Amino acid sequence: MKVLIIGTGAAGLTTASTIRKYNSDIEITVLTQENYIAYSPCAIPYVIGKEIKDFESIVMHGPEDYAKKNVEILINSEVVDINADKKTVIYKKINNNKDSNKDNNENSEEETTEIKYDKLVLATGGTPFIPPIDGVNSKGVFKVRTIQDGMDIQNYINENGVKKVVVAGAGAIGMEMAYCLKEIGIDTTVIEMVPQIFPRALDPDMAKIVQDYLEEENASEDAKLNIILEKPVGKIVADKNGAVCGVMVGEDTIEAQMVIMSTGVRSNIALAQKAGCEIGRWAVLTNELMETSVKNVYAVGDCVEVIDAITDGQTLSPFGTTAVRQAKVVGKNIAGMKNAPVSKPVLNSNVTKIGKLEIAGTGMSEIGANMNDIEVITTITKSASRARYYPGGKPIYIKLIVKKYDNRVIGCQAIGEERVAERVDAMSIAISKGITIEELANMEFSYAPPVSMVVDPLFLAAENTLEKIKNQ
Amino acid sequence: MKVLIIGTGAAGLTTASTIRKYNSDIEITVLTQENYIAYSPCAIPYVIGKEIKDFESIVMHGPEDYAKKNVEILINSEVVDINADKKTVIYKKINNNKDSNKDNNENSEEETTEIKYDKLVLATGGTPFIPPIDGVNSKGVFKVRTIQDGMDIQNYINENGVKKVVVAGAGAIGMEMAYCLKEIGIDTTVIEMVPQIFPRALDPDMAKIVQDYLEEENASEDAKLNIILEKPVGKIVADKNGAVCGVMVGEDTIEAQMVIMSTGVRSNIALAQKAGCEIGRWAVLTNELMETSVKNVYAVGDCVEVIDAITDGQTLSPFGTTAVRQAKVVGKNIAGMKNAPVSKPVLNSNVTKIGKLEIAGTGMSEIGANMNDIEVITTITKSASRARYYPGGKPIYIKLIVKKYDNRVIGCQAIGEERVAERVDAMSIAISKGITIEELANMEFSYAPPVSMVVDPLFLAAENTLEKIKNQ
Repeated sequence: MKVLIIGTGAAGLTTASTIRKYNSDIEITVLTQENYIAYSPCAIPYVIGKEIKDFESIVMHGPEDYAKKNVEILINSEVVDINADKKTVIYKKINNNKDSNKDNNENSEEETTEIKYDKLVLATGGTPFIPPIDGVNSKGVFKVRTIQDGMDIQNYINENGVKKVVVAGAGAIGMEMAYCLKEIGIDTTVIEMVPQIFPRALDPDMAKIVQDYLEEENASEDAKLNIILEKPVGKIVADKNGAVCGVMVGEDTIEAQMVIMSTGVRSNIALAQKAGCEIGRWAVLTNELMETSVKNVYAVGDCVEVIDAITDGQTLSPFGTTAVRQAKVVGKNIAGMKNAPVSKPVLNSNVTKIGKLEIAGTGMSEIGANMNDIEVITTITKSASRARYYPGGKPIYIKLIVKKYDNRVIGCQAIGEERVAERVDAMSIAISKGITIEELANMEFSYAPPVSMVVDPLFLAAENTLEKIKNQ
Repeated sequence: MKVLIIGTGAAGLTTASTIRKYNSDIEITVLTQENYIAYSPCAIPYVIGKEIKDFESIVMHGPEDYAKKNVEILINSEVVDINADKKTVIYKKINNNKDSNKDNNENSEEETTEIKYDKLVLATGGTPFIPPIDGVNSKGVFKVRTIQDGMDIQNYINENGVKKVVVAGAGAIGMEMAYCLKEIGIDTTVIEMVPQIFPRALDPDMAKIVQDYLEEENASEDAKLNIILEKPVGKIVADKNGAVCGVMVGEDTIEAQMVIMSTGVRSNIALAQKAGCEIGRWAVLTNELMETSVKNVYAVGDCVEVIDAITDGQTLSPFGTTAVRQAKVVGKNIAGMKNAPVSKPVLNSNVTKIGKLEIAGTGMSEIGANMNDIEVITTITKSASRARYYPGGKPIYIKLIVKKYDNRVIGCQAIGEERVAERVDAMSIAISKGITIEELANMEFSYAPPVSMVVDPLFLAAENTLEKIKNQ
């Protein structure tokens, strides 16, 4: 059997590794239009911010590592068509090396190759959505998706002595980039259309806590991270060389030598459409084995729609963790493993780190509940990460979102300087196992003064929520 | 209604606070034979080790704080008898101030007072078990239970220039004390009868990881923490002034100016017996409302037996966290709260910090499973706390204990320098909700490079366990 995989992100490569782990016979070929494989795109801001030494560090493997496992990787190979009836894929070599001779380049782009598959796995990921703003094609406007994007940003900063940057979009990637740019001494202004930062990950009340933290930090640091909410980017202004020199927001022009567009991501569905796969509202539809509507064609990762564990409706889950889980489902099933798992509805657990703050969430937000007509009771509880007398403890804020009447916990958000992500992860298990707020208040955590509080912040939050329910 | 509570540890005071939180009418009096209330005994080693400034810091409240909440606290008040038929308690004042006049002291000890109760809550805690070793009453032999013990130890060290200490018993308290003594430059030798450290919290294979860590640290530090396993303390040797000068272990004498006895704790059941309460194998028996066999008498905390969540048998749970949970059950029920909770079987989740290492566990150990004839499959997985390219990540070891045939996870132990306790806490929720190893491998955690790995150590451990099961 021959398996073809399109895409070398977490979804594609985990599919390849999982098949190989459980089956040594299947032929595996993975195609990517990129030059680098097996890197962590989530790490790009932290390389820019110099918390990670260089881009080489975040490349975990090269094609040669996969060759040792008898997995063939074809880099710089763009799939241009899929023929699901013939079970073939047509690809062409592309040149990602910008310094190379242009003629050679164009020649090679004419040639295409057709290869057969028995099973095809689409792991085509997503592409940043760039709104059609005036001036968006100016020099110095970047997206943040591939390692090449990261290298281009770093080079542009170094070559042009960038001192001021505008980041369009205050989601996780935008905020991470903005903070990391500030960390290397660049004044950064984030512009967001909605009235809060982290519009997808946090509710406004929790987002405000992060914003206050950032404002407080601004007071004591040279480089600033400014946030402008409820305003769109009007126009990107270029100088006579076509390079960014400012961004218009309403009547104001903000000086900037660089613009980072972090205005959302769209699933790459063009190839799936060519293969004839059914597409949902935003992305490829699959069943719980990650099979598309086309026989022998699977899809995994950012290019697919998933089921929301709280609403049972369709949603997106553009996280490396989801990609890995889905890839294991496909890999184990293709490898013929007994009792192979099926894909489960998602809670979209997420975390980011902004300065010293960990910001994490899982399940339904209050905003999401309102949009889905789910009646909820919510609380925000401020507590601490360690016993109060133990040096080094930090505040921790926990928001619980509880469904009215049956008292099931359906969401949790947390912000603090230590031991935040794991509490949200514990809540991910709790929510996926259908825990009620009464049960949560009565759970059993470990305790030692250097590590925790005798009443865990989660339990204090649960008690507060119970009391709010009682008083209603 | 008048509620009398005996004991001002976490169990007694949480009972008092919980009643008051939900009911402002009930009269509440709490008696303790100690001079200090509302301190964290778990913090004592860290004050000795100077990680916490002083003993005053670990006292959270005084009787005056409770008086403000209309809770009467009678300190230095030893209950000498209970008359459950008359519903009275008889106590006498004792003098904990060692510097005071001895005559006054004896006079006051003659007087007793009888007070009535409608409900009585026994929160009498436990007392260190001191084996009848030759020389155990010498000057310089200490136990570690009350804040007074801690102060006595600190004073003895300062007044006698203690340079070498022997700690008898390698449980959590013994190991914490030993490490903290090493931290202030004192050579410490821990002597343990069984062949491992942390005999109750860890399996031998996990305990060995901690022991190796400590040995490695010894190589680079001046003060040493030595461990002698599988040997009892033979005799404590005193000098001509009756002060400790050594400890005999087999044929060898270990020089020591101080001995810390951390050889276990026994539940204080004498008062419960006087009240006529039924006693189990080790401690007071209660139902799930924490009611003893005697009407209107409750018991909470270290003095009661509880149900083990894995075996359904009786066990002990001498943890502040368990005391707090039980006290909330009693407090809410006595306060007449609607839908008040009942007490649940325990997993005995626990954590300690030894140097940089967090050491945590929940549920059944492999040793415990063997003793209870539960067939298990176990794995130890070494992983890391952060993405491999992100600076500062640390190794993390996870042991999973999974029941054969139904594949339910029944225990987890973890060791590492960061993000250990919360993973075990997540497993506490998972185990109490009956998670299988297949489900665990497919759970959904958050991920960001500075915070975690895209495949969480717990999930990697689950995958390894699944593979071991498959290969059997």
